[in-house]
Amino acid sequence: MEKTLFSEILEDVRHRAPVVHCITNYVTVNDCANVLLACGASPIMADDEDEVEDITKLSSALNLNIGTLNKRTVKSMYKAAKVANDIGIPVILDPVGAGASALRTETALNLISDIKISVIRGNMSEIRALARGYGVTRGVDANAKEVVTENNLVESIEFVKKLSEKLNAVIAATGAIDLIADAKGAYIVRNGVEMLSRITGSGCMLSALTAAFCSSNKAKNLESATASVLLMGQSGEIAYRRMIETKGGHGLFSAYLIDEIGKAEFSTFIEGMKVEFQ
Amino acid sequence: MEKTLFSEILEDVRHRAPVVHCITNYVTVNDCANVLLACGASPIMADDEDEVEDITKLSSALNLNIGTLNKRTVKSMYKAAKVANDIGIPVILDPVGAGASALRTETALNLISDIKISVIRGNMSEIRALARGYGVTRGVDANAKEVVTENNLVESIEFVKKLSEKLNAVIAATGAIDLIADAKGAYIVRNGVEMLSRITGSGCMLSALTAAFCSSNKAKNLESATASVLLMGQSGEIAYRRMIETKGGHGLFSAYLIDEIGKAEFSTFIEGMKVEFQ
Amino acid sequence: MEKTLFSEILEDVRHRAPVVHCITNYVTVNDCANVLLACGASPIMADDEDEVEDITKLSSALNLNIGTLNKRTVKSMYKAAKVANDIGIPVILDPVGAGASALRTETALNLISDIKISVIRGNMSEIRALARGYGVTRGVDANAKEVVTENNLVESIEFVKKLSEKLNAVIAATGAIDLIADAKGAYIVRNGVEMLSRITGSGCMLSALTAAFCSSNKAKNLESATASVLLMGQSGEIAYRRMIETKGGHGLFSAYLIDEIGKAEFSTFIEGMKVEFQ
Repeated sequence: MEKTLFSEILEDVRHRAPVVHCITNYVTVNDCANVLLACGASPIMADDEDEVEDITKLSSALNLNIGTLNKRTVKSMYKAAKVANDIGIPVILDPVGAGASALRTETALNLISDIKISVIRGNMSEIRALARGYGVTRGVDANAKEVVTENNLVESIEFVKKLSEKLNAVIAATGAIDLIADAKGAYIVRNGVEMLSRITGSGCMLSALTAAFCSSNKAKNLESATASVLLMGQSGEIAYRRMIETKGGHGLFSAYLIDEIGKAEFSTFIEGMKVEFQ
Repeated sequence: MEKTLFSEILEDVRHRAPVVHCITNYVTVNDCANVLLACGASPIMADDEDEVEDITKLSSALNLNIGTLNKRTVKSMYKAAKVANDIGIPVILDPVGAGASALRTETALNLISDIKISVIRGNMSEIRALARGYGVTRGVDANAKEVVTENNLVESIEFVKKLSEKLNAVIAATGAIDLIADAKGAYIVRNGVEMLSRITGSGCMLSALTAAFCSSNKAKNLESATASVLLMGQSGEIAYRRMIETKGGHGLFSAYLIDEIGKAEFSTFIEGMKVEFQ
Repeated sequence: MEKTLFSEILEDVRHRAPVVHCITNYVTVNDCANVLLACGASPIMADDEDEVEDITKLSSALNLNIGTLNKRTVKSMYKAAKVANDIGIPVILDPVGAGASALRTETALNLISDIKISVIRGNMSEIRALARGYGVTRGVDANAKEVVTENNLVESIEFVKKLSEKLNAVIAATGAIDLIADAKGAYIVRNGVEMLSRITGSGCMLSALTAAFCSSNKAKNLESATASVLLMGQSGEIAYRRMIETKGGHGLFSAYLIDEIGKAEFSTFIEGMKVEFQ
């Protein structure tokens, strides 16, 4: 594994400034737009069914996020995703709250079944809800826990690899330990801080970044998703240090996080990576 | 009056991490999510009528906020509120802009009439609009002014107490002086700074916090609402001092406010309280 | 040209605290609310067709922004705009993404054709999309470029002046060089920093400010729009200096920008202006 690869993916995003079409929730949409701009991409948010096809056509990636979904925007997600599949740009799915309501779980499962999705990015609880709901995969999540720990790491890796195979998509299950897997292998990332889970939007922002990163090199969705996870984790670590130094809290941490995503540099980015492949 | 009670309510929220379902406006929804996380609660925003019942069922409080309401989400508010009443979790209503449009005033009045509401949290102008509209209460607001001052304090307290009796809900009328009342008595809070009214979302965030606090101890809605008002007021004071020290303005104040809500400590929280009961 | 005029417009906004009704996108709506509060105005966001007329009636300006537009809110824009025209308050249009989808371009063109608009504020790409679509103006944009530079300045000024005449509205085309024109002349503003284009919302916030500023003196839409451009540009410059000094990035820049809009002072505001009239 070459760590420079992840750094090159980041550099490439900055160089290409890909347009990322987001159909996303209204809670964290501002954070998603800002994080995309900070990493060098160009966000466009549009959810009316009469325009999403036009917007996807001029984009390099499509990010679907089902937080605060409603029936109007679900229709738009389908229309946009079909165009994305037709023109061959990556589709990222963030199944926010899958498992919390039947509507969310079913919407996510239907999208997975009907659309070619490049990466599914969620926490382990959401990922497990998808696995449970996806008929044939019921067997595979018997050993999956809500949270990945060093103790259940082996089974967790097995779970996400099998799920990736079933769903034909890279699975990025993020938390204290992040797993990013396809059918053949998984990256394990140990960057990040607990504070990332105490502000809203860190997951949604990560999915938006993943869309930008996957647009950079479509053949390497696994590595692109891992690069975005590494960037979020490391930026969180530095933001947390600054927060402590300036005696700040949740509010400043949010601002610093965006700061650090924008400031990430090639050399320090590689140096800070805590990543392995299994 | 034991000031420790308010501090215990805050500790309890941090300990229990209650899930708070918010059906709220898209202007300040991000602030509401972040403030809930900062105080130790767990926000979930969902407004589609096909999922709100599922979401309310797994929540410990429901926060209804009518800013940027629309016909679609008003229906969802009813569905969610009926579940909340059935399972016995507190419902908080923030009548944003009541009095500014017929739709808002009527929606708020209808919710109050159809739903058992624990706390109504608004500014005095909004609270008065509800009182005017609520047939039988017309008499009671004859002496109510738009703003509570030391000069009209006695009449204002009488007004919110009577209104609380009529509406069968705790009334939290916030401003330069905050009044939190039920039929039998009122807490008067003199914490806070004018700057809180010069950023968007301080009222909406306070209502969201109130939902989290009421979930902690359902028998004590009056004290729970007062605790959230005290937390917002004190956090505003500290945030304002930091803003002055760092030569910041509205932008940093917003970040510092979230900081301080997350950093509030038992001992200093009690020390800073400017509260009395009448 | 008296620079004090622009400063007086700002002072007047602070003195009058105009209510600005925004029907705007959910990406940057929080920024718009905060920037209006910071400059001394009073924002109200409302988009349901059953209440927009009530809300516009109590407002001093109407800000229409078509980012994340949908069919429901387009109807509301019409209803609100008709009231605004009837009661004689300024209507500002921000044609976000005009040219990116047929829906956006057509919605913007229809609004321009049906409604009396005071100021159209967009980037040059959006402004050109309107010019192209507006039948009779096709001729005038032959020489218009996507970006205004010193090299194409003369043609660009000619273009916005002619377009202003055709559309009967002040045109504010903003970018590295800002042009604010009516049929008779144009202000050229060279304030601002590139960083303003690397955060979300700087354009939307500028349009919201423009609405507040035009409410101050309806006879001087050209000067009011220029004053808001000057305020955004200068605040961006100071925010950028503070960002560098504090080793911040995109996140702190956003907070500092709101800070500086709130802190702008009469004397330094005049001193920093880089504006000429042609």
